[in-house]
Amino acid sequence: MADAERKLNNGKSRIDFQADPSKYRHWKLTVGGDVATLLMDVDEKGTLFEGYELKLNSYDLGVDIELADAIERLRFEHPQVKVILLRSGKPRVFCAGANIRMLAGASHAHKVNFCKFTNETRNGIEDASEASGLFTICVINGTAAGGGYELALAADHIMLIDDGSSAVSLPELPLLAVLPGTGGLTRVTDKRKVRRDRADVFCTTEEGIKGKRAVDWRLVDEVVPASKLEEAVAKRAREFAAKSQRPAAAKGIALKPLTRERSADGVEYGTVSVELRAAALASEASGQRGQSQVRAPDTREDGSSARAALASEASGQRGQSQVRAPDTREDGSSARAALASEASGQRGHFKSARAGHSPEPGSSARARLATLTLRGPQAAPPASAEAMVEQGAEFWPLKLARELDDAILDIRANEFDVAAIVFKSSGDPAQVLAYDQFLDANKEHWLAREIRGFWKRVLKRIDLTSRSLVALVEPGSCFAGTLAELVFASDRSYMLIGKRDGDNKPPATLALATVNFGAYPMSNGLSRLASRFLADPTDLDRAKAAAGETLDAEAAERLGLVTFALDDIDWEDEIRVFLEERASFSADGLTGLEANLRFGGPETMESKIFARLTAWQNWIFQRPNAVGEEGALKRYGTGQKPAFDTRRV
Amino acid sequence: MADAERKLNNGKSRIDFQADPSKYRHWKLTVGGDVATLLMDVDEKGTLFEGYELKLNSYDLGVDIELADAIERLRFEHPQVKVILLRSGKPRVFCAGANIRMLAGASHAHKVNFCKFTNETRNGIEDASEASGLFTICVINGTAAGGGYELALAADHIMLIDDGSSAVSLPELPLLAVLPGTGGLTRVTDKRKVRRDRADVFCTTEEGIKGKRAVDWRLVDEVVPASKLEEAVAKRAREFAAKSQRPAAAKGIALKPLTRERSADGVEYGTVSVELRAAALASEASGQRGQSQVRAPDTREDGSSARAALASEASGQRGQSQVRAPDTREDGSSARAALASEASGQRGHFKSARAGHSPEPGSSARARLATLTLRGPQAAPPASAEAMVEQGAEFWPLKLARELDDAILDIRANEFDVAAIVFKSSGDPAQVLAYDQFLDANKEHWLAREIRGFWKRVLKRIDLTSRSLVALVEPGSCFAGTLAELVFASDRSYMLIGKRDGDNKPPATLALATVNFGAYPMSNGLSRLASRFLADPTDLDRAKAAAGETLDAEAAERLGLVTFALDDIDWEDEIRVFLEERASFSADGLTGLEANLRFGGPETMESKIFARLTAWQNWIFQRPNAVGEEGALKRYGTGQKPAFDTRRV
Repeated sequence: MADAERKLNNGKSRIDFQADPSKYRHWKLTVGGDVATLLMDVDEKGTLFEGYELKLNSYDLGVDIELADAIERLRFEHPQVKVILLRSGKPRVFCAGANIRMLAGASHAHKVNFCKFTNETRNGIEDASEASGLFTICVINGTAAGGGYELALAADHIMLIDDGSSAVSLPELPLLAVLPGTGGLTRVTDKRKVRRDRADVFCTTEEGIKGKRAVDWRLVDEVVPASKLEEAVAKRAREFAAKSQRPAAAKGIALKPLTRERSADGVEYGTVSVELRAAALASEASGQRGQSQVRAPDTREDGSSARAALASEASGQRGQSQVRAPDTREDGSSARAALASEASGQRGHFKSARAGHSPEPGSSARARLATLTLRGPQAAPPASAEAMVEQGAEFWPLKLARELDDAILDIRANEFDVAAIVFKSSGDPAQVLAYDQFLDANKEHWLAREIRGFWKRVLKRIDLTSRSLVALVEPGSCFAGTLAELVFASDRSYMLIGKRDGDNKPPATLALATVNFGAYPMSNGLSRLASRFLADPTDLDRAKAAAGETLDAEAAERLGLVTFALDDIDWEDEIRVFLEERASFSADGLTGLEANLRFGGPETMESKIFARLTAWQNWIFQRPNAVGEEGALKRYGTGQKPAFDTRRV
Repeated sequence: MADAERKLNNGKSRIDFQADPSKYRHWKLTVGGDVATLLMDVDEKGTLFEGYELKLNSYDLGVDIELADAIERLRFEHPQVKVILLRSGKPRVFCAGANIRMLAGASHAHKVNFCKFTNETRNGIEDASEASGLFTICVINGTAAGGGYELALAADHIMLIDDGSSAVSLPELPLLAVLPGTGGLTRVTDKRKVRRDRADVFCTTEEGIKGKRAVDWRLVDEVVPASKLEEAVAKRAREFAAKSQRPAAAKGIALKPLTRERSADGVEYGTVSVELRAAALASEASGQRGQSQVRAPDTREDGSSARAALASEASGQRGQSQVRAPDTREDGSSARAALASEASGQRGHFKSARAGHSPEPGSSARARLATLTLRGPQAAPPASAEAMVEQGAEFWPLKLARELDDAILDIRANEFDVAAIVFKSSGDPAQVLAYDQFLDANKEHWLAREIRGFWKRVLKRIDLTSRSLVALVEPGSCFAGTLAELVFASDRSYMLIGKRDGDNKPPATLALATVNFGAYPMSNGLSRLASRFLADPTDLDRAKAAAGETLDAEAAERLGLVTFALDDIDWEDEIRVFLEERASFSADGLTGLEANLRFGGPETMESKIFARLTAWQNWIFQRPNAVGEEGALKRYGTGQKPAFDTRRV
């Protein structure tokens, strides 16, 4: 189920992130020469869930899925388009933002996921501008409130009609007790660079700001009288088009529908398999407890090390006021053994500190794992850029990126019980590298550039996915070049040393290429390897020097490219125990932990949106003032006033 | 009441942030030459609240208040000290971190405030190193778990005894389902620059990491056998002392106890008055509703502008499917008038968009305001640095900073109903500037440097205070130089134009000085004026050019230094309506809003701690997996396992 509290419309059981322009319900995309018009004209009845109507160009996730699709299609299907005019098809309203009834009835998980996707879509609009020269001009013909103004903020240029009434506003705080959470606060301060006290006034003024003050305060770029609007829009479109390097004569490729075969256990794409299974072995997943609850593994009474320190401190009841240091334990667990053998330097590669410590039976009754296996190319790259265009959506790097993106979005929105995503691959690493070289060689070609850009966005989406990410680098895999990024995007990676007993697959290898050193920046602006090697730039230099080499497990571990290299003997147990343990931890704790550990180093506007802004909004989405029975979101539109706890925290 | 759920120990009614070394219960501070030893030896019974014991050097806010005090005293009272040895007085345990029983029983507000203060204290340890050359070496003689290791992370150098058992760990996630929230995650990634996958292993391994691996993974700087520990510590202390520029021959000043007179309505310090009052007029604060709840102002049924757009979209019940634009309203409110007159350019300075729109009666039944009036110096600066030392804690800039700091901490921890802090000042601006010039002239003197550093930290604390901050610049005030920073730290500032009718006080002025352009960086690394003028550096240049001038209200508004300049006629109503409205908004929404708007521009490790890390921790502190009846914090130490909702959000 996509959402615990609402039913999807039309009897659907999953949220589908694929869209088809011929079936758009909310947007009208028209292309004329180098200018496209993207007209928002939301169908009130075309809701994703039951129970609300999308009045006044308000939106739900379904509306945004179409928007994201339209932007992608402009990049791939219409490479000659240089300017998008983002307009409303409704009179006197541009967009009223996220639908409040939808938000009021949505589960916490859906709210959080909804905000994440809408943020990614708006970042995508900005990326189209920065990376592709596809500029967006937003024409506001009425009220742009809340998410409506946040959508405008993603544009390169905001035009506001000067009719004495049309205004931009962020009324979320005064009206709904939540934040403008789709990048609004961050873009007001960091993109539009509105003075902080003016931003404070703006964000607490329901009615918003219009006319000359909206320009003076940097909220919009210009105001235009109604009588001169079309002329002014055409002029701006020409100006922006003149700055774009998009190819005037290029012919686009069709983003054909993905082929997906779904079963109870997963989904099969052309180049990606998704397998879903319980995180714990069936025999362990006993039915002792309620379906949605599992026990944490760590309150055993045997008093080990850190636990002992904390536990005896906490309980004050056990008569155990001295720390029992790890080596005073007498159960001889391999956790101790691993630490001890490490200390004495006996083992070159790691053995998990927890090997042999199986979580208790029944600890993962509901949590699941999603294993994504990515398949390498079946054939060598095409002979020329023209041949690549000919292959279109079947061109392997593009096909894989689209399928991977869909698989991740599907898990995010529909599989809340998936605790961890495990990345595997199969294929010939040399072929993967050949495709990377092909794209390098054709990097000035618009389609090669768009494909690299698409991979950049898919990888960022993975970075931002609130599931534990694990890469298993096994015999027969092809984690090379672009695919190696999945290893570096993972929270942990394991690589098998040598061949498996009785298996003829070639030993696991890892290979770096040029593409790993800048083509795919994370939201912090650094490559994944630069983020990985923040401590010592010479680690990055060493990795660069190894580019092109076929690295076996021990070489990869030595270079710091994988977390652990393991023998076949240890492999199954180590991975099983790790994944079971992971699935037994608090889901929320992991989300917070990973959101902190994944983004070392600098912050950008984009990373600020997903950290500072999103984390605060998630907090507010838990607070009674917003979501309680008497909170502003619940009471909005009922005629009843919300009741607030006024205590500041 | 400091905390809703727990009672303070010893019959106290407030948390007191002042400490006296002669009465420390948890720390032993000894100074020998240029090395001080700060020994953590927590008194189990010396708790701040009732209901738990501080076993194994675990801590509560009371322990941290003494620690913060000790660091400040080393800076002011012992200027010759160059190295702090941070050690444990307990055998085989360094520190078990924040006390879990305390956390489990604390209100959300106290948990959040506790984390904020402990973070500030650890930042203070790092600031002592960076700004003052007072280095900290942490000597870990046993278990440093959770907050214990986070304390170590604040040090310049971490030594771990190599006895086969002593380890560092961050077991919060596996044991308690919360984050290491006192900077741990951020310092692991951004200060120690631990590789992200190793950080993942470390933060999910209860037992922690010890020995050589702790060094290899950059978690500690060295491991030392027990037999060589003292020798190694002495050697490191000599090395760090050699790098310090602290003055060997200087004599410190005594940080004498503050004088405070508390009444029902506030507290009087020597240079600061704190006045507490209801946010709404008494006649409006009717007793219609429960004490802790107020109504939000914004669900009136008259359907204005942004509200109309959102409301009719949300309700779908009102038969109002068209936006009613602001100018179609017929009530002629001054909000419209203000916007309209602004649009036509008739008015040079701002009139709030909400003037005349009074919140409903009863909307602020409990919310309060704290007005802090800062008094300027009574006399000219001393004649020399020696005379400044002679004045010691009575030297006006230091006295004011200490009193202001205490006032802010007191409000944060004890006055949760205070919605807004209003800064006022009274005195001679020329004298304030004279003190700034005196400190500039003596900036190489250790005490001048420490006083500037103290102001920097107080101002940062204000930036991080979760209350709306308002500066009122009125006749007779002295917001000049250092004191002008309070205007720039505020979410909004109002300045009165000219004299008040029947009042002989000189018109309000604002004056900038060198000190406003770099001496007091915010946690984002920029001065408050640079943060203010992100959009256009020439605004900052214009402000610099005006340094030293006496700016009246209209000049200050023209330079962008205040939000609004108002006539005497508008002043009372504008301020009253603004403050009442502010107090009627959702407290949580404001906290999130202000945390986003105050910190435009770059992020630093420090700002990441208070944004990314803290916001995620606050979220987790609301989630049932941690704080629910079956959550890990509640169940810890009870022998019952926590029950987790495994769904990932």
